[in-house]
Parts: sequence; C-alpha cells; structure tokens
Amino acid sequence: MLENCFENVKQKKPLLHCITNYVTVNDVANAILACGASPIMSDEVNDVSDIVSICDALYLNIGALARDTGKLILLDPVGAGASTLRTETAAEILKTLKPDIIRGNISEIKTLAGTDAATRGVDASLSDAITDANLDSSIAFVKSFANAAGSVVAVTGQIDLVSDGNDCYVIRNGCSEMSRITGTGCMLSALCACYAAANPENITEATAAAVCLMGFSGEIGAARLCKGAGNASLRNHIIDAIYNADAAALGKGARYEIK
Amino acid sequence: MLENCFENVKQKKPLLHCITNYVTVNDVANAILACGASPIMSDEVNDVSDIVSICDALYLNIGALARDTGKLILLDPVGAGASTLRTETAAEILKTLKPDIIRGNISEIKTLAGTDAATRGVDASLSDAITDANLDSSIAFVKSFANAAGSVVAVTGQIDLVSDGNDCYVIRNGCSEMSRITGTGCMLSALCACYAAANPENITEATAAAVCLMGFSGEIGAARLCKGAGNASLRNHIIDAIYNADAAALGKGARYEIK
Amino acid sequence: MLENCFENVKQKKPLLHCITNYVTVNDVANAILACGASPIMSDEVNDVSDIVSICDALYLNIGALARDTGKLILLDPVGAGASTLRTETAAEILKTLKPDIIRGNISEIKTLAGTDAATRGVDASLSDAITDANLDSSIAFVKSFANAAGSVVAVTGQIDLVSDGNDCYVIRNGCSEMSRITGTGCMLSALCACYAAANPENITEATAAAVCLMGFSGEIGAARLCKGAGNASLRNHIIDAIYNADAAALGKGARYEIK
Repeated sequence: MLENCFENVKQKKPLLHCITNYVTVNDVANAILACGASPIMSDEVNDVSDIVSICDALYLNIGALARDTGKLILLDPVGAGASTLRTETAAEILKTLKPDIIRGNISEIKTLAGTDAATRGVDASLSDAITDANLDSSIAFVKSFANAAGSVVAVTGQIDLVSDGNDCYVIRNGCSEMSRITGTGCMLSALCACYAAANPENITEATAAAVCLMGFSGEIGAARLCKGAGNASLRNHIIDAIYNADAAALGKGARYEIK
Repeated sequence: MLENCFENVKQKKPLLHCITNYVTVNDVANAILACGASPIMSDEVNDVSDIVSICDALYLNIGALARDTGKLILLDPVGAGASTLRTETAAEILKTLKPDIIRGNISEIKTLAGTDAATRGVDASLSDAITDANLDSSIAFVKSFANAAGSVVAVTGQIDLVSDGNDCYVIRNGCSEMSRITGTGCMLSALCACYAAANPENITEATAAAVCLMGFSGEIGAARLCKGAGNASLRNHIIDAIYNADAAALGKGARYEIK
Repeated sequence: MLENCFENVKQKKPLLHCITNYVTVNDVANAILACGASPIMSDEVNDVSDIVSICDALYLNIGALARDTGKLILLDPVGAGASTLRTETAAEILKTLKPDIIRGNISEIKTLAGTDAATRGVDASLSDAITDANLDSSIAFVKSFANAAGSVVAVTGQIDLVSDGNDCYVIRNGCSEMSRITGTGCMLSALCACYAAANPENITEATAAAVCLMGFSGEIGAARLCKGAGNASLRNHIIDAIYNADAAALGKGARYEIK
C-alpha cells in the first residue's frame, strides 16, 4: 500500500508551495525535487495568492495566510512552545485554517494540544519523548488530538506516530544521527505534503509513507557514511537516498505496525 | 575565445552584488567563489547603494532598485508568469533598468516578451520547450526579443540560446539530471554576471561562455556520481566542477554553434 | 587546556540563539550541531525576547536588539566598512550591547576600531592582512582594541589573533582553500559563541579553542578532498571534521603560541 503512495508522487509530480524558514529551505527544495515533486517557495504577501492558485498543496512552516479553497494544507509548528509568538501563531493557524496534516515533534504537538510540554528551542524535550514505556498513552494522546483537530497528526522522533484519530501508525525507521542535522523535520513535513497531495483519498497512509521514506532514507544515508564523514555528508546522503528510493525498497524497508 | 572570457574572470576576480532569493543563495555564493569571483549579498534598502558602489556587477533575481551608473546589471525573472507580482516586477525592471543581460527559462522569457507562455511555478512548461523541431523559430524569437529589450538574452533549458539580436549561440551542454536540483538557474545567472563583468567589451560571448561552463560542469558532475548518489551529490559536484574548471577543458567541452 | 573547552561543549550542549544572514545560515546550523551544541535561529522582533530567554548565548551577525541580562553575546561585524549601514550598526552594537566576544576579519575589526581599513565587500583587503612582517604591530593593535572594547577580540585570516587585552593567541591553523567557501567566518563565529557559552569562566581560551578547531577542521577537510572535488566538497568536509573532532586530536593539531 505504501508503494502506491510512492508511485503516485512520481507520476503526479505535485507542485508544493512552501512558506518556510530560511535555515533549511534549500534542503527542503532539494528533498521535494528528490521525491519527484516540484517546489515553489514564496512568502511575499502579494505573491502568495497567485502561487497558491497554481499549486497542489501548501506547506506552512509556521506562518499565516488565508486558506485557499480546496488546497491541501500541512502545518509544521516549528518551535511552538519556545516562544509566545510561535505558540500563538500555530494555535491560530490550527483554528482558522484547519490544516489537513500537522507534523511536529512531541513537544510542539503537546504545546498545540494545550498539554504541558517541555520544549527546548526547536528540539523536542527528552522528558516528552515517546518511548516503548509510554507508547500506549502516547498513541491515545495522538489519536485524541487528531480527533479534536480534525487533522492527520504526525508526531516524529525516535518512534513516529501517525494518526487520523482512528488508526495509529507506529513507525520505527530512522537513526539517531538524524538529530544532528538541521532540516530533517522540515524536509519530512515537505515530503508529507507532497505525498498527501498525490494521494488525496488516502492522506493518512500517504503521510505514514512519507514518514517511513524519510526514516528509511536516513538509515541508507547513515550506512553510506565513510570514515571521516559526519553530519554534512549525512544530510547529502539522505537527500540522495530520497532521490534513489523505489517503491519496492520502501515497501521492504518500512518498519511499522498499525494500532 | 571562450577561453579568454574564462581567464579574465580568474584574473579580474569581479565582485558581484547579488539581490537574490533565500532558497538558493548559499549555492549561488559558492558558485561565484568557485568560478573565481567574489559574492556580496545585500537587499537591505539602506545598504544597497553603498554595496553597489563597490561592486563590479549587479545580479537581480527579481527585485527592484535604482540603476547605478556604469554597473553591469543582469536580470533573472524567476517565476515571471507564475504570479502577477513577479510578472509585473520583471516587466518594470526591464523597462526602467534596461538590464545588460536577461537570463531565464523559456516560459519566463516569453512572459517578459509579452508572448503567451505556459509557466508552471518556477520551472519552464514542457509545451514552451526549445527543441530541434522549433529551433529556427525559437532563435528568431530570442533575437527579436534581444533587439527589443536592448539586452543580451540567455534562454536556458535542454538547448540554450544566447543572443544579442545579431548572433545567436545555440548551446548543447548540460544533462537532464540538472533539472532535479534547485538553484542551477540562479547559479547560472550569477556566473553570467561574473563573466560579463570580467569581459565588458564582449558581453555576448562572455554570457555564452558562462552558459557552456554551467552545462559542462553539470556533465562532469553527473559523470562523477557514484552508486547511491543523487541530486544532493550532483549539486556539490557541479560547484566542485566549476571550481576545478580550466580554460582548455572548457574550450574542448563546450558544444555550441553560432547562427 | 583547549581540550577542556572542547569537552565542556560536548557535555553542556549549549543552546545558541543566532541572528544571522540567510546566505550561510544552514551551514552555521549544521556546524553548531556538529560541535555538539544546539542552534535556534530567530529574528522576528516579537519572537526574539522569548528565544533569548531560553538560550545560553546569542550570536549577532550584524543586527540589533536589546541586551538580555546575563547572556553571552558575540558580535560578527560582517561587511563593516563596506557600507555605512553596516559600519554604523556594528559600531552601535559595540557601544550599547558591549559584546563579550567580537569576531571578524582584519578589515572589519579595523573599521570597528576606527582605524583606516580597506574592506572590499565581505572579504578582508589584502593590504590589511596580518603577516609575519607586521605581526608585532598587529598583536599590539588587537590587544589595544580588546582593552578599549572590553571584549575578547578574534581577528581571523591566514594568521588568527585572539586577545582579551592581556594575552594574545597567535594561531596558525587553517588552509588557503577555506577562503573559497562562503560561510567559514559565520561558522567560526557560531563555534566561538558555543565554546564561550560552555566555558564562561574562560572565554578567551574557549574562543582560541574554537578558532583552532575551525582551522584544524579546514586542514582535515582539505586533506580529504579527492580528485575532482572543490569548494562544495570542502564545505561538507569541514562540517564533517567538526562533527568528528575529539579533544585529543584538537590538542595535538592546534598550532598556537601565546604572546
């Protein structure tokens, strides 16, 4: 099934409009191209409405604008909890734009859900982390928030959870070195939006497929690191792995269960 | 002849002021350094006039400011046709600043020329593409627009055309994988501006040399891709190839005819 | 001693708030992660005060905001001397924020000190360069400026000087290829801030350790360049080398004397 989501991106080549930050934007654009979709970045107020009208999906990396009819919207609440501005902006987008997908780390999602979170900058707090010890309660939390928000919610970390309120994908791809690269979260959000745009009738599974692809690409990238290589090489290897991914390998490499 | 243009950049090390976008700016800066020139990025209104005064050329990646006397100006109308703001801004720069060089894809250039174009985001539309089938009419169009604009016009894609209204370079360097990297167009525009700044008496040929260099570097970069490598590696290989280029190799690798 | 500074960063993992430019920000973030610290970039006015409150240090790449009590501040006066805006902004930050550390090239530091400088864009002028011929007078200048500013001053180039007004570290790590990459100065400033934040009782030595680490990583990166590789590969290799550095290797590879 994940393979279908994958092939749909390659065939439909969705155009993704990204309103994102300047830290990781180049990696996000290359990751979008790597997966077979096309990026367009624009955040000039007078530019945005025209650009939204030609795109297939919109990826909002904390930022606000009016919802365009019929376009898929993904919200990435980067740093929600780290500052009042970020927390309030994310909360307002959640309320007014009703994003189709929300992708963040556990601290950001807890902040959005109004639960106590212990965010530290743009990284999740260790005390918030989803582990095998708290897996059941974490799943219950994500399902509950997905239902309340009316969105597919993807919480990513060592264990990733993707839920639409009914099912919850528990995904165990990825590797610890990925936390030492800037932009893995932003790239993943962009992939989720590309996959959902190409699979509009199956957004939950498409999001799970994108999460598996990102984690699997991290594993491949880490395995390709030669002696002396570090996080800059890993960043390139991950984008390269997305570029070279094929449906069969993803189907074989994806490690998930549905709960 | 292209070799002279190449050596002049290495010797004169022009300082290029770039007003560009935040998606590809880092690659643009490294490409400029790779070719032997120096970049300075600034778009703060109060900063620009001072910076322009010390630079050798100005690279405008859609943006507007007053023309400084005597500096070479290159306009890259990114996404013209994709939004009214971009189309109108590009048209206004064309009219008021009279750029020495205009570098874009065929959809952007058609939009600037007031011809029907089918842009899709920042990529050229397939239906606009220059092919062997429409080569003669494409050459006539580019010559005509170059004459009307009073600029050297470089239209880049699978086949690249560079014309000052009289001659037209038809260039066949490059490879298809380059379309899967963000920033090749921006980097090429920056190279054109560097080459023209170092060859002020021969802007047309300098622009053609830069276009050949970019395409040839893409070919070298693609040939260096090892198993498992993808678009992130190709991006690095292309900048590396620009860095390692020499005049003799460029002279030998350039594939063009003048029509 | 430098080894202690190194280990403190790995153990304390300082959170560094960066207000920096969009040209090199991604490399800066990856360099911070590579050295063991955490980055957060924010320059939205309403966001900054909250972010500063949770961070351990602030890295100002020319920009202005109110000083937060008790946070370490590093100023990087990029391009001071190249435009009135940059020169005046840097001078004002120097006066009002009293940064703990100032890191720049010799032309920028001379501009800040009110001495005649010959800046050319964001690169130091050759005529300003610190060499063995003018080493004694350069050391005297840096000590004097450090005393006047009440800051640790790091002037980096072919020979690097780090002084708090009393001692002056004369550092000879690095390689010439580093000048062909954008962002080495910005990355170094970020490392200095990380090292100082993790070594608050020994800021001068921590700054010297960061300067040695950057230069040593450049040497390792250049040594790893294979045939056909250039400045894009070197950029990645340098970040990789920071990622893989260990205290013993740094202690052995650092080439400095104290004068």
